[in-house]
Amino acid sequence: MFRDMLENLRARNPLIHNITNYVTVNDCANIVLACGASPIMADDKEEAAEITAICSGLNINIGTLNSRTVETMLIAGRRANELHHPVVLDPVGAGASKLRTDTALRLLREIDFTVIRGNISEIKTLACGSGSTKGVDADAADKVTEDALDEAVSLAKAFAAKTGAVIAITGAVDVVADADTAYCIRNGHAMMSSVTGTGCQLSAMTAAFAAANPGRPLEAAAAAVSAMGLAGEIAYKRLGEADGNSTYRNYIIDAIYNMTPEKLEEGASYEVR
Amino acid sequence: MFRDMLENLRARNPLIHNITNYVTVNDCANIVLACGASPIMADDKEEAAEITAICSGLNINIGTLNSRTVETMLIAGRRANELHHPVVLDPVGAGASKLRTDTALRLLREIDFTVIRGNISEIKTLACGSGSTKGVDADAADKVTEDALDEAVSLAKAFAAKTGAVIAITGAVDVVADADTAYCIRNGHAMMSSVTGTGCQLSAMTAAFAAANPGRPLEAAAAAVSAMGLAGEIAYKRLGEADGNSTYRNYIIDAIYNMTPEKLEEGASYEVR
Amino acid sequence: MFRDMLENLRARNPLIHNITNYVTVNDCANIVLACGASPIMADDKEEAAEITAICSGLNINIGTLNSRTVETMLIAGRRANELHHPVVLDPVGAGASKLRTDTALRLLREIDFTVIRGNISEIKTLACGSGSTKGVDADAADKVTEDALDEAVSLAKAFAAKTGAVIAITGAVDVVADADTAYCIRNGHAMMSSVTGTGCQLSAMTAAFAAANPGRPLEAAAAAVSAMGLAGEIAYKRLGEADGNSTYRNYIIDAIYNMTPEKLEEGASYEVR
Repeated sequence: MFRDMLENLRARNPLIHNITNYVTVNDCANIVLACGASPIMADDKEEAAEITAICSGLNINIGTLNSRTVETMLIAGRRANELHHPVVLDPVGAGASKLRTDTALRLLREIDFTVIRGNISEIKTLACGSGSTKGVDADAADKVTEDALDEAVSLAKAFAAKTGAVIAITGAVDVVADADTAYCIRNGHAMMSSVTGTGCQLSAMTAAFAAANPGRPLEAAAAAVSAMGLAGEIAYKRLGEADGNSTYRNYIIDAIYNMTPEKLEEGASYEVR
Repeated sequence: MFRDMLENLRARNPLIHNITNYVTVNDCANIVLACGASPIMADDKEEAAEITAICSGLNINIGTLNSRTVETMLIAGRRANELHHPVVLDPVGAGASKLRTDTALRLLREIDFTVIRGNISEIKTLACGSGSTKGVDADAADKVTEDALDEAVSLAKAFAAKTGAVIAITGAVDVVADADTAYCIRNGHAMMSSVTGTGCQLSAMTAAFAAANPGRPLEAAAAAVSAMGLAGEIAYKRLGEADGNSTYRNYIIDAIYNMTPEKLEEGASYEVR
Repeated sequence: MFRDMLENLRARNPLIHNITNYVTVNDCANIVLACGASPIMADDKEEAAEITAICSGLNINIGTLNSRTVETMLIAGRRANELHHPVVLDPVGAGASKLRTDTALRLLREIDFTVIRGNISEIKTLACGSGSTKGVDADAADKVTEDALDEAVSLAKAFAAKTGAVIAITGAVDVVADADTAYCIRNGHAMMSSVTGTGCQLSAMTAAFAAANPGRPLEAAAAAVSAMGLAGEIAYKRLGEADGNSTYRNYIIDAIYNMTPEKLEEGASYEVR
């Protein structure tokens, strides 16, 4: 079924508006191209609504937010909602500062998101309305392990019911859920956390999958999450002894570029709960 | 003849001031280093004139413009004009929003550009004073193919005559023209459009070629365009089965780093009209 | 002895707050991950103090400063001082514009830095209170060669005595000194200057080494400088004929990822003066 999601993405080549941080923006642009979509980055409020309107999807990432870009996020998000375009939220570092938590909560109040993707700390922060996050990575104590999986599924379903969004919690096992159904995805490799921005890249790619598969946000998000994890596995196998996280970064994007619907279908490892 | 252009660039090592977008800025810096120049990025209005003054060339790219940086572009552009430094304009996404179109047109009115480099959609927008662009990539209908080549040559020459700038329209075939002469360049590879910012990189490198070859902007721009395309060809040949757009990005910059005047002279594929 | 510094870094995994330029920020994040720490980038004044407080070290880099981010640097720096966190300054381009020189001097007046890392031109500018720098690279005439080494050692010790900071002057030979002791480090490769941001990366990594080794800033900074240079040597040996500065960039970060305390101890090449 993930096969169709990627086939549609490659066939439809949607244009994706990204308002994202300057740390990982280049990788986000390249992975959006790799998966078959086209990126445009534009964060000035004067053009935000117009750029959103010519795109098919919007990706909002608060990784290096400031007062100027927060306003742009709101403008673009409202316009995307009016146009019924899918909108993805990546609440990077929610819980790490009041500004990030408040901004993420404000975005949640004012914009209808199609998919919200974060680590467990970030999603807990949003679900509880407050939180404490160690920087931009998940708290060690909070990582999604097999043991914590049941709890993560419940959290994701409940938060999906509350927001109407598909919730994607990424970690050792990824959980992608709407109010009723959760995909527990076991693709990926631990070394992915040594590459900055694999989460940001996944969020950008999720917007592309969602834009190419209108009305099917749960399957689209699950396919994106699985594709990213599978790319991490494929890329890891290519690594030589002297390779490290920088080469790994390149190989992950390369693996998305070379991903076929068939490879994704075969390599996807998940159960539905 | 392109041989001399690159020889001069390697010998003179010009310092290039870039006011450019945060998406592809790292690649721009690395390709400027690769071709033999040195980059400096500075976008605050308080230092713009001073930084421009210690440089030999200026590259203005509106890829992620905002009100703060547009003002800086104007200040730096005026100072470069006073000092008779070459100035390159990359009107990324002109036609995609009113802000981008208006900004590009304002820059055109207030600054004398040495070279303007864009895809056919962007250049048409500037030439007509309005336009509609699909994001930051050329409209499919507008791509420079052999069939559309005559029209692109006419457009480039006419717009060059109007602005006094060399016009570089990049696409399947690249056209680089002043009012009288057009180079139609057949270097490059289709996969280059899967790498974000190859156009931005080319614009930054064009500023370096122009700065190292004062008084010869047409040949300098044509050499830069040909070098970029040739690098795309060389890099493509290096790709293995598992490589994708991220490795390709690295190999293109590597190929510029290893480009010699002789390789460029031999590999350049163009006709003059 | 450098062995311990890296062992502590890998064991303690400090979180590092970076306020840095948008040109090289992605590489800074990846090298911080590669060396065993975690990065967070945050440059809005509203969250700066809070983000600094959850981190163990702060890295301030003025590479693309503007009025908004300079204020953030001051707020974060003061908070880090209150918390006795190590703070690194990278005065990119000090001497190249009044804004950069004035900002670096203001930061020096208002914040106690643990380590200041720059090229000889930048450090001279700070030590003299004025200067002229060719862009962001060291003046050719000022490069640290064997001949100029004695002078660089004297400068570093004197400036360290004046500021209370460890001074790291990087060039052909690197000098890392406090008021009494200087490490003259002979690791590195000339090709590193063809990669944008190796200095920025080193500064970010220095903050990580310093945060993981409290009370030992001289040894921590010397270990970071030596590790970066050694990574440049290791990466250079991996290069094939077609590789250039972009692949070299990846291999340098890879080499940091694969650096072991033993490799660093064996590969470090320095004398103490």
